Amino acid sequence: MNPTHLAGPVLVLGSGLLGASIGLGLRAHGIDVVVSDPSPSAQAVAVDIGAGRGFDDAENLEPELVVVAAPPDVTAAVVAGALQTYPSAVVVDIASVKVAVAAELADILGPNRGMLERYVGTHPMAGREKSGPVAALGELFNSMPWVLCASEVSSQHAVKVAHSLAIDLNAVVFRFTPDEHDAAVALVSHLPQVMSSLVASRLQETPPHALSLAGNGLRDVTRIAASDPALWVQILGANAPKLLEIMLGVRADLDRLITTLSAPTAPGARLDMAQLMAEGNAGQTRIPGKHGGPAQQYTWLTVLVDDKPGQIAKLLTEIGHIGVNVEDLRMDHSAGLQVGMVEISVLPSKRVSLVEDLTERGWKVIL
Amino acid sequence: MNPTHLAGPVLVLGSGLLGASIGLGLRAHGIDVVVSDPSPSAQAVAVDIGAGRGFDDAENLEPELVVVAAPPDVTAAVVAGALQTYPSAVVVDIASVKVAVAAELADILGPNRGMLERYVGTHPMAGREKSGPVAALGELFNSMPWVLCASEVSSQHAVKVAHSLAIDLNAVVFRFTPDEHDAAVALVSHLPQVMSSLVASRLQETPPHALSLAGNGLRDVTRIAASDPALWVQILGANAPKLLEIMLGVRADLDRLITTLSAPTAPGARLDMAQLMAEGNAGQTRIPGKHGGPAQQYTWLTVLVDDKPGQIAKLLTEIGHIGVNVEDLRMDHSAGLQVGMVEISVLPSKRVSLVEDLTERGWKVIL
Repeated sequence: MNPTHLAGPVLVLGSGLLGASIGLGLRAHGIDVVVSDPSPSAQAVAVDIGAGRGFDDAENLEPELVVVAAPPDVTAAVVAGALQTYPSAVVVDIASVKVAVAAELADILGPNRGMLERYVGTHPMAGREKSGPVAALGELFNSMPWVLCASEVSSQHAVKVAHSLAIDLNAVVFRFTPDEHDAAVALVSHLPQVMSSLVASRLQETPPHALSLAGNGLRDVTRIAASDPALWVQILGANAPKLLEIMLGVRADLDRLITTLSAPTAPGARLDMAQLMAEGNAGQTRIPGKHGGPAQQYTWLTVLVDDKPGQIAKLLTEIGHIGVNVEDLRMDHSAGLQVGMVEISVLPSKRVSLVEDLTERGWKVIL
Repeated sequence: MNPTHLAGPVLVLGSGLLGASIGLGLRAHGIDVVVSDPSPSAQAVAVDIGAGRGFDDAENLEPELVVVAAPPDVTAAVVAGALQTYPSAVVVDIASVKVAVAAELADILGPNRGMLERYVGTHPMAGREKSGPVAALGELFNSMPWVLCASEVSSQHAVKVAHSLAIDLNAVVFRFTPDEHDAAVALVSHLPQVMSSLVASRLQETPPHALSLAGNGLRDVTRIAASDPALWVQILGANAPKLLEIMLGVRADLDRLITTLSAPTAPGARLDMAQLMAEGNAGQTRIPGKHGGPAQQYTWLTVLVDDKPGQIAKLLTEIGHIGVNVEDLRMDHSAGLQVGMVEISVLPSKRVSLVEDLTERGWKVIL
């Protein structure tokens, strides 16, 4: 079963960041997109930015596909409505939890649950720190994972159409069961979110001079603590059982740590502390590299640059001339002044010659 | 009291990453540096890379300053020895905890604790993911915080010499009491470290396909989980009381979260969850921006680039021509393929004209 391009029309229900981005991306292929939102102004903005034409009650629309891009709390109800209103359409949702939506959907449909053969739950793993149609972007899903969670009753046709949607938006398709999906996102998304919030929460009543010592470690760990509570409450609530299991494991480790900190000179305390840190090392190395490759596929090197306009550009221009692709780049957040360190990651095979070439051109490279 | 440049000679005890970096940085000012390490090979490497001349027993050295750059566990003993061996020298250490070192030092010196007038505890907040003299770098402390923790008995002269050390290495000096220092680093450094390790630890037994969904959030939160357990056990052990207090607060919040996750539809559960997330928001916004400025001093914008050699360089070159300084830059870690998003931060006052100029030059800027 090869996915083909969507034929359309595609009805997008919900014109927030993700719905409007889907509309924009499909419109770029010339696909007929209709956008609908309970908020007339949100719908109008989505239409204005080119995410599709506005929904018109009078039109006898027969969509090939309905994409439900509603908040997680109302997703199941909107999916059920779409399955009933458009009896020949495939319906997908894009909520970031899947088991709870599927269960609620089966409840709502009751005797009509045969309709679920036309439904596929999906989860595009893309987003931005901003929300709403104004932040929408047709390229939002480019190269990002899009998880398809077909159920046992999803038809081959429905899966093929859902797959086509992801492919048309240049996403990378993964196939998970709803249960596998929810367990995976509890771990890779919901766990870091709540832990980041717990760390940031401790900073609320600190004297400002303590925070003046903040470095990259604190900044990295707390970056996602800026996320929107309203959305996250829906996500965490809907995936509570899976996340709970993980958080109980965290609490057991935290209790081990608290025991060692309470009596740091007790026999075995240091060994326990080292063991906890080593377990963190072991887990961290399992995270795959960019492009879904194996972990640590790239190698980092550090270059000193003056902190003034044009220096990093000059560096990257020269790396471009040398013909090496910079896979990732980080700048050091320092406390002031004029010299910075830029870390760049490159393919290990390019490393030695790049260091030689840069050094020859007068850059100070630190290995 | 204005710090002046050091006159030397400076004796650096310990030639790991930090000791060797201090030697290199001082040598760049032409200061006479002597390096000493219990490991003859580590000392030889430090000498080879130009961090100073090797310690010679036969020489009657009278250092202006002794810098103790030993592991935290032995710092107090080495400081005590230096105070006794070099009766006219100022002695500083650079361990990342200060109260425990000061207490142990007073114990060791006993009736000789009058010598402490020549001692100042300090903490340069710089480091790299690598260790050892091979990774040393004279510029390591450039623009980074260097905390001076003078005690009540530290002489003005001793503080002035310690200050000069930090200034000669281009660091940014902060003055804290030992107690304030340990409370601050427990919060901004030790807390994120252990929380990052606790998150990463959960990844140890996950099926790899779950980790294929890992995004920037997980990567950011777990980056420092790669840190060295042997070093961190010494740091956490020495600052256990301060960190314990913070971790008990974390456990109280974690228990609140676990309660809501155990019964996510119970009355008040959602409100509690939202409250926890909002507390994280509130703490996160208190972290100051780069250059020690107020939080969120810079504004971010996103530019689409092709993921091939030279594209980011081209973008930054053009930004350089426009005359705007890029304060920070992040690349999106996506799951594959050819288009990426680059986020750059600039001064808010430059934002509007930069967006216009970039758009005119054909870049796709996302606001």
